[in-house]
Amino acid sequence: MKNYIKVPQDIEKRSFEIIGEELGDKKNKFDDTTLPIIKRVIHTTADFEYADLIEFRNDPVSHAMKALKDGCKIYCDTNMIVNGLSKIVLSKFNCSANCYVSDPEVAKEAKERGVTRSIVGMEKAGKDKNTKIFLIGNAPTALYKLKEMIENNEIEKPELVVGVPVGFVGAAESKDVFKELDVPYITVNGRKGGSTVAVSILHGILYQMYKREGF
Amino acid sequence: MKNYIKVPQDIEKRSFEIIGEELGDKKNKFDDTTLPIIKRVIHTTADFEYADLIEFRNDPVSHAMKALKDGCKIYCDTNMIVNGLSKIVLSKFNCSANCYVSDPEVAKEAKERGVTRSIVGMEKAGKDKNTKIFLIGNAPTALYKLKEMIENNEIEKPELVVGVPVGFVGAAESKDVFKELDVPYITVNGRKGGSTVAVSILHGILYQMYKREGF
Repeated sequence: MKNYIKVPQDIEKRSFEIIGEELGDKKNKFDDTTLPIIKRVIHTTADFEYADLIEFRNDPVSHAMKALKDGCKIYCDTNMIVNGLSKIVLSKFNCSANCYVSDPEVAKEAKERGVTRSIVGMEKAGKDKNTKIFLIGNAPTALYKLKEMIENNEIEKPELVVGVPVGFVGAAESKDVFKELDVPYITVNGRKGGSTVAVSILHGILYQMYKREGF
Repeated sequence: MKNYIKVPQDIEKRSFEIIGEELGDKKNKFDDTTLPIIKRVIHTTADFEYADLIEFRNDPVSHAMKALKDGCKIYCDTNMIVNGLSKIVLSKFNCSANCYVSDPEVAKEAKERGVTRSIVGMEKAGKDKNTKIFLIGNAPTALYKLKEMIENNEIEKPELVVGVPVGFVGAAESKDVFKELDVPYITVNGRKGGSTVAVSILHGILYQMYKREGF
C-alpha cells in the first residue's frame, strides 16, 4: 500500500501553501479579505484562471460579513449549493440556506408559464425579507430575475450577490449586465463558474469569520 | 427588461451546439458514446481543457450502461454528487446513489483512527455487493482506498469508477495510480475534477440511455 497523507487538515494546509506559491505576483491583485476567497476557489477548481476572472464590486466581503453575523438567510439557485455549504459553520452564525427550484409548486408554475424554475424560485425567495445573500451558480435567468426585482424595488438591496452562473447561453452576459447595479457583488467574468465555485466563495468569507471568532 | 431565452430546453440545446462547434477537430478523439460525455463535462465547467484531460479506460460506458440497466447502487464520495444526480432519471432505472461521509458513526470512526471520513465511508460502501459504480470527485484517499479494496479482493470488480478528485495534494497521483487496475474507469488527468464533473460524467451516460429508452 502506497503511503499518502491521510489527515484532512494537513491536506488542506499543504494545498493552500501550493496555491499561494503558484499564484506568485497575482496575489498582489487581492487584499487580506479577498485573497482567502480566490485561494478557496482555486482549491475547489484547480483552475488558476479564476484569479484573472474573479471580480469584487461594492465592498462585498464586509457587507456579507455583517449580514452573516446578523444571522441572515441565503438563497441558492441550486440544491447542490445548499448541500455543499457547511451546515456546521452556518449554524454557528444562525444562518441558513435554501433553494426552491425543486419545490413541486415552483416546478408546476414554471411549466405553466413556460419559464425556468430558477425564475419562479427567485421570486419566491425575494418574498422573505431576511434573505440578504444570493448565491447563483447555475442559471443566468435567476441573475436576470434578481436584477429586475432589485431595480423594481420588489426586494431590498441584498448584502451580497455571488453571481457565477456557468455556461454558454446568457451566462457571461447576465454576469456583466448585473454590474449596472450598485450592489455588493462577487462575480467570475466570462463563461466559467458553477455550484462548487459559488460554495467556495461563500466559504472563503465564512471561514475567515469562523477563525476570527475562535470557534 | 432585457430579452433572454427563458425556456430551459432551448438553452441546453443551443449550449451543446456551441460546444460542438468550438470543440472542432477535437471531436475526433471521441466516439458516439464518449462524445456526449465530454460535451456534458464542458457544459458543466465551461472549460474546454477537459477534452484533453479526460480519459476512458477498459470500455467504461458499456459496462456502466449494463450495471445501470440492472438497477445498481452508486457510491459517491460527496453529498454534493448525490444531490446533483437526477433522481428522476436514476429512478427510471431503479438505481440509487449514496454517500456516507456525513454519517455520524463514520465521522466518529475517522476521528478515532485519524484518517479521512472518505476512507471510512468507502469501506462501508464496499460492504454492499450491489454497489457497482463509484463516483469520486473530491478525495484522493477515497480513490486510493477503493484501489486497495479491489486489489485485496475485498469487493468485486466495479462496473465503473469515475475517478475525478480535484486538488493539489495527491489528486493527480491517485488518479494515475488507479490506472494500474483492469477496471472500467473514466478519469481526468492532472489536478482538475470535482463533484460537478463527476455528476456530469454519469449524466452523460444516463441521458444517452434515457433517450434510447424513449422515456
